[in-house]
Parts: sequence; C-alpha cells; structure tokens
Amino acid sequence: MSGLNAALRHILGAGGLLDAPGDIAGYRGDLACPEGSDILGVVRPRTTAELAEIAKACMAAQVAMVARGGGTGLAGGATPVGDAPCVLISFERMHRIRSIDTVGNVMIVEAGCPLQQAQAAAAEAGRLLGLDHGGAGSSQIGGNLATNAGGNNVLRYGMAREQVLGLEAVLADGTLLSQLQPLRKNNSGYDLKQLFIGAEGTLGLITAAALRLRPAPVRRTTACVGLSTPEAALALLARAQSLLGEAISAFELLPRAGLDLHFRHVGECGEPFEPSTPWVVLIEADSASRHFDLDAAISEVLEGAIGDGLVLAGTLAASEAQRQALWRIREGIAVAMIETPGALKSDTSVPIAAIPAFIAQAAEAVARVAPGAVPVPFGHVGDGNIHFNVLPPPKGDLADFRRRAPAVARVIEDISIALGGAVSAEHGIGLLKRDALRRMRSTAELDLMRALKRSLDPSGLLNPGKILEV
Amino acid sequence: MSGLNAALRHILGAGGLLDAPGDIAGYRGDLACPEGSDILGVVRPRTTAELAEIAKACMAAQVAMVARGGGTGLAGGATPVGDAPCVLISFERMHRIRSIDTVGNVMIVEAGCPLQQAQAAAAEAGRLLGLDHGGAGSSQIGGNLATNAGGNNVLRYGMAREQVLGLEAVLADGTLLSQLQPLRKNNSGYDLKQLFIGAEGTLGLITAAALRLRPAPVRRTTACVGLSTPEAALALLARAQSLLGEAISAFELLPRAGLDLHFRHVGECGEPFEPSTPWVVLIEADSASRHFDLDAAISEVLEGAIGDGLVLAGTLAASEAQRQALWRIREGIAVAMIETPGALKSDTSVPIAAIPAFIAQAAEAVARVAPGAVPVPFGHVGDGNIHFNVLPPPKGDLADFRRRAPAVARVIEDISIALGGAVSAEHGIGLLKRDALRRMRSTAELDLMRALKRSLDPSGLLNPGKILEV
Repeated sequence: MSGLNAALRHILGAGGLLDAPGDIAGYRGDLACPEGSDILGVVRPRTTAELAEIAKACMAAQVAMVARGGGTGLAGGATPVGDAPCVLISFERMHRIRSIDTVGNVMIVEAGCPLQQAQAAAAEAGRLLGLDHGGAGSSQIGGNLATNAGGNNVLRYGMAREQVLGLEAVLADGTLLSQLQPLRKNNSGYDLKQLFIGAEGTLGLITAAALRLRPAPVRRTTACVGLSTPEAALALLARAQSLLGEAISAFELLPRAGLDLHFRHVGECGEPFEPSTPWVVLIEADSASRHFDLDAAISEVLEGAIGDGLVLAGTLAASEAQRQALWRIREGIAVAMIETPGALKSDTSVPIAAIPAFIAQAAEAVARVAPGAVPVPFGHVGDGNIHFNVLPPPKGDLADFRRRAPAVARVIEDISIALGGAVSAEHGIGLLKRDALRRMRSTAELDLMRALKRSLDPSGLLNPGKILEV
Repeated sequence: MSGLNAALRHILGAGGLLDAPGDIAGYRGDLACPEGSDILGVVRPRTTAELAEIAKACMAAQVAMVARGGGTGLAGGATPVGDAPCVLISFERMHRIRSIDTVGNVMIVEAGCPLQQAQAAAAEAGRLLGLDHGGAGSSQIGGNLATNAGGNNVLRYGMAREQVLGLEAVLADGTLLSQLQPLRKNNSGYDLKQLFIGAEGTLGLITAAALRLRPAPVRRTTACVGLSTPEAALALLARAQSLLGEAISAFELLPRAGLDLHFRHVGECGEPFEPSTPWVVLIEADSASRHFDLDAAISEVLEGAIGDGLVLAGTLAASEAQRQALWRIREGIAVAMIETPGALKSDTSVPIAAIPAFIAQAAEAVARVAPGAVPVPFGHVGDGNIHFNVLPPPKGDLADFRRRAPAVARVIEDISIALGGAVSAEHGIGLLKRDALRRMRSTAELDLMRALKRSLDPSGLLNPGKILEV
C-alpha cells in the first residue's frame, strides 16, 4: 500500500496526505461512531481535478475511499469499517465559495465549505440559504448534501436536497460529473444529481454544488408557548398555518422532561414563562417583505388559542436577544442529550397527524422495556420529525439501561414504522441504521438500491458498508 | 402477438384492452408528434396490481410498453417509435384521488387523474397544489411527474418534482415499488422516487404519488405593466423580490410580436393598457395570510418603477374577472403559437442574468438564418425559462421557412447552451430533443444515464427510443 501513498503524495503535493498516526487520529469517525477501522491516510485535495486523480489511483489499487465532511454525523456514515484499510477523503481544503449570483439567486460552493460560512456569505449578499441545523458551525456543505441534512426550517424550505440546483461530483473511477448549471428549470435527461444527494458518499463524491438562494428575511417573529398535550400542538400548528401561511419557518415541540434536563444540566437558562407547562412550542415565522405584518398574525393566533384554552401561557420575543434566548432553550435540550451518559437518541418521523399517537405509544413501550427510563420526545412537529430520545432512569442502573437500549430503540422504531413513518428522518443510515433500513424498506426497494450501487460503484470502493451492507 | 393480447384481455377484463383500429387511433402520439408507429393495443388498467400483471406479460413476450398520460406532451415522449409493435399504457381508468390529509398537507393521487381535478380537490379542502400550467385541463398527474412538468409558478413552488413526497411505480419486470409515505423527512436509503420523476416512462411506470399541499392563498394581486427592454424586466423582478419576497408566484414576459399575433389571431382580447409598449410583464403574487398586504407591496413596487422610468404604463387587476382577462392575454400567445402554421416552438432556459443577452443574440441569429422571421421570445423570466419561439416571415414562403426551421432551432439552442442554459427546460427530451441532449450533456453524463437505463430496464422495454437512443 505504500505504493498508493506515494502516488497520492505525488498527486497532492506537500501536506496533502496525512499518514502519521498522530495526524490522522481525529479523522476516524463522527459524533456517533468516533473510532473506525484502520486507514492508510487522509487525503486533502485542493481541487476537483486532484480528487479525480486520487480516485483513479485508489481504483487502480482497489483501495476504498471514505468521504468525510465536518465529522458531525450522527449515524456513522463517515466512519471507516471493514478489514481492508481505506483512504479517508477530507474536503477541508476545498472550501471556496466560487460565486454568488444575486440576479439568479444562486451560489456555487465547494464541498468543504462549512454550512455556517455559506449562510454568512449569502446573508452578506442580502440573501438567505434555506438550510440550518444545530451542526451548522462545523458541518460542511458536502456532508450536508451527502446526508440530505434537515434541521429546523424544513417545513418552510425543505431538506438539503431542495436547495440544490446543480452538482459537481467525482465518480468511483475518477470520472468528473459536472452539473453546476444554476438553472431553475432543466429537464435535460435523467436528473443525475439526485443520485448523490443523501447517498452518503456511496455512489460518488460531491465536490461542489449550485445552491438556491432566497430573498433575505426583513421581518421575523418568535413565540414560545405552553401547552398541555401534543394534540394541542397540532391544533396550534393548523391555526398558525391558516394565519401565517407560508411564513412559518420553525415549529418545535419541547417536552417538560427535556426542559428539566436542560435547566439542570446547563444551568444557563430558566423557564421561558410562568406557570410551567407539560409541553412547550417554539414558533418562528419570517418574511422577506416588510408588508407582511407577522406580529399582527402571530398575535391573532395566540389570542385565539389562549381564549380557547389551547395555549396556557407564553411569551413573544421582543428583541433579537430574547429570540436567541428562546432558541437556546431548544438547542440546549439537544446539547444536554448528547452530554448525558447513556442517553438514547432517535431520529424517527411519522405523518404529522400521527404525532400524538406516536408519542403516546412509544412512551408506553419504553416504560415496558426499560421501566423508569424518561422519554424526551422533541423536535420538529412541523415536518413530523420527532426525535424520540430516552434518558436512563434517574436513580437506576446505567449499565442495565445500556443493555436495554437496543431493545428500547427497536420498539420506538417499530412503532414509527407501524404508523407509516421512518426511522431515519434526517440523520441518514450510515452504520447505525442499516438493520432498521432492512425492516423499513421492501425487498423491491432494497434490490433497487443494490442495483444502483452496483451500477455506479461496481468495485464497491465508495464508502463500503454504509447504507447497504453489500 | 395475439397470445399477448389474449393474456392482456384476461388480466384486464372486458373493455380494458383496446385493439380495434378505430379505438386506438387517438392514442398514438402527443401534441408534438401525433402519429407514432404501430401498436398492438391500448391497455387501460384500473389498478396498480393490474398494471404489474401487464408488465409481467409484456416482459414475458418481450414487447415494449409506452406509458401515456393526457397526450399534451410537446416533445414526443409518449409517441411510440421503432419497428417492433408495442403496447400503449393509458392511465385513464386510474384516476382516483385516494386520500387528502389536511393535517399533514398531503394528497395521494393516481397517475391518471387530470392535474386540474387534483388542483380542484386540493382547493376544496382549503389547500393549494403548487403545480399549474397551460395543459392542466387534460394532462394527468402521471405525465406531469414523468416529464417533471414546470409552468408559471415554478419560481414560487418549484417543478413537479418538488411537489412529490412519495411515489408508487411498477418496474419493467412488474415489480411493485411502493413508496407513498407522506413524510416531509425520510432519509432512509437512496431516494428512489427521484429516478422516475422526469424519466418519461423509460425507467418505470408511475402509478400514484403523494403530493405536498400548501395552505390555500387568501390574498392575491395581479399586475400587468409595460417596459421597453428585457433588461428592464430583470430590474423590475429584483425590485419586486425585495418588496414582495417569497409571494411572487408568476413573473411572465410577453413581447410585442406575441401580443400582436394573439390579438390578430384570437380577436377576443385587446391591449391591457395604453400606450402599448415593446414588452409587457405579468406579475402575480399571493399569500395564505391575510396579514400580508400584497396590494401595498405591489403599489410600492410600481410607484417606484414608474417614478424611475422603468415601467412605462400598467394596470392592476381590480377583480377576479380582470385578473383572468390579464392571464388570457398571456395564455392566448401560447394558443396562437400552436395554431399558427409553421410556428417554431422552443423550450430554452438560461441563467436569469443572461436572459437579455440570450434574447438579443438569438434574435440576431434568427435574422441571419431565416431573414424576415419574427422572434417571439416569451415566458417565465422568474425562472429563466424563455420560450424563444419564432413565427414564419409574415409575407414569406412558408415552405422555405419550414426548410430552415431545423437550422433556426439549432442556433437558438446553441446560444442557450453557450450561455450555460438548457434546451429542454420544462417539456422534456422525448423524441424531439434527443439530438440536442447529446450536444448539451457530457460523455460522462450520457454514459451514466445509459448505465441507469441498463440497470433499471435491461431488456429495453420501457418507452424505447426516448431520451436516449441507447
């Protein structure tokens, strides 16, 4: 294999290949699966042409390539596995914003650009990139597209896929596929870019994308309200949609158990309003037009809902600082979950109307499988993506809960599937959800996925063992 | 082949198979290519299960299957070609709306349902289906998805693809692929439905779809204004976006030559305002919130633009009747083009900033190739899709123009491609644009399209000869 490393060093020049043990330690996994199998080295191309040469060299040596973005994945999608050492591809040196077109409302960004930098560049040009989530600071555009990232604004702007107008990718054999045309309409043959979005680097290597921009919001309103049940949250969503329409950009559900965990754990935030309620909803709406009176609309929503007893209490953000404080309450739950030993995360989605049934059935099942464990179902009501997370019993045996965790995850997934839902709404399949994928997809679907894999990567060199075990 | 017809008759029951010459006459093509090659018969399944059996029978007999929707295609995509007779599949008896979910905002519709019926059902439920175009009355949902139809509202809601949450399809060998989950977030393996959208029935047969619904508009404003140049239209679009933001649902450019043709041809409409201007723009904006003051926004746009001399004249629709009259001016141009003998249609799109250059360069090239011919570049400025149509010289030799038409089409396409555009923005490739596809796509792209075709339809039985000549 040292022959391959020499070839890679020749392609990349000084500093392009990392293969000293100390240099590659941080590259072998993501947040969910940090320690993968052995790697020959980390290649850090500066250009798409360099990456194409790398792929050709790896193909010639029949060595696998695992693409890696910011390492913030939650499913092990960038974690190398298997007996044969592979090459890890880091896009950190391909981070340019190639262009921003404010007439056509499109930006062309390289795969290694962090999402937050792309957002900031769009904002500086008076535009909005309609993709945001908790990992925006570190995650990269390439990883966002390879996992079809979701986040808080999906009900308004759609998933990462829906931001993509054009794509540039390198195929398994080093062929360059250049489709960066910034066109809104382009029915010129099969829409090949769709193959690579959400495929987690198993069908090709995304190197750059033409992303849709929108007019930047000039008005925004943020409310945080208390409710007694998830059913009330759905009723409130319907009212909000009828008065705010397309302006709702986030509608997040926070359970009491999650708020309590957060306030205990971080200590920085407190209750957003009194009296405290079993459930809290965070609503945000924005508009690129100053003629959309969002404050009047949200006030009408809340006055009606309070009058009818649907909303028990609440607060409106009167400043950007207050708005950020409300968002910290929501984000703090996610942080506290990650930092709580043994906490079980899930990424289920169900049809929106089934959310109350899902929460009730899953809570009952968790109580059966792991008595005393604390359900923390929270997240994106507006798009059906409830992360049904579970905390270990407060005074229980952590080792015992960890033994039960696979069974807990399984009952939650099974209930989601039975309600017509998915077990990987926005995190992807990677390593962790491969078994679940087989339960959720039919033989016909899995066969077709395998046929695509064989067709695009016949040697199985692109991120082997991810999504499909083949 | 009579053995196959007997098998099909057995699957379909009485009336399901049409094979008398008089019965099948109307099925052998679309608006662009009405007379295709011989067919064995027209199968009209009532259910997805029946269609799966049909596909198995055709596979066993190695007879090709050509799917057909409403027959309103403009590229020959549903027109049978080749020496071997094929079976034509009509979805006219699979037209049910299976469900409408106003909580999750999704409707499940069968392939044969006319777009206009799906729109009406959504409206009745207080929702909007974000897809509309001139062929809505006759075209069917399946055809809309198989061609990834566009239309007037793409700048607001995206193409047909972006309305699809789930899909049901039958593969070449009769395998049922059922993916009708109405989920907003579902990263559970490769997004297989994308393969079939825009593939014109060459990779699988779409039988039903779960379509995204939106809150219905409760406010709408429509303006028709006169401008001196396409550059002025782009400047007006930028101003409208900064004041109306996401509410702009149509922004259509109409040239003087198109208006004159229409007024002469149909005789029903007249000038929308005086004095008449070289170019006219039709702007529409709508909102699902009554708190969005669209009239104030459009007034601010127009007052500023008139003050600066950008807009020369204009009118606002004061009633639904006036609104429809303004839209008839636009739609009448399309009708008049279709009904004018020899008129050349095109479906080019370019980056929005390149629209003025495209119109100028294409007009110059047309004057060179067909002196005296009349350019009618019109359509969707908001999404870059200018249909650069051309009328024969008013007093010229029609036969001569028809001889020059392929060269005229070619120079228009070449200019679009040189400007980074596409030659098939919303009509698809079908038969008519196969040559252009080869000029526009790289070898790598075409090879990958062929690999997909081989992988999904190894026997080449699905709509052979379309998109790719294979």
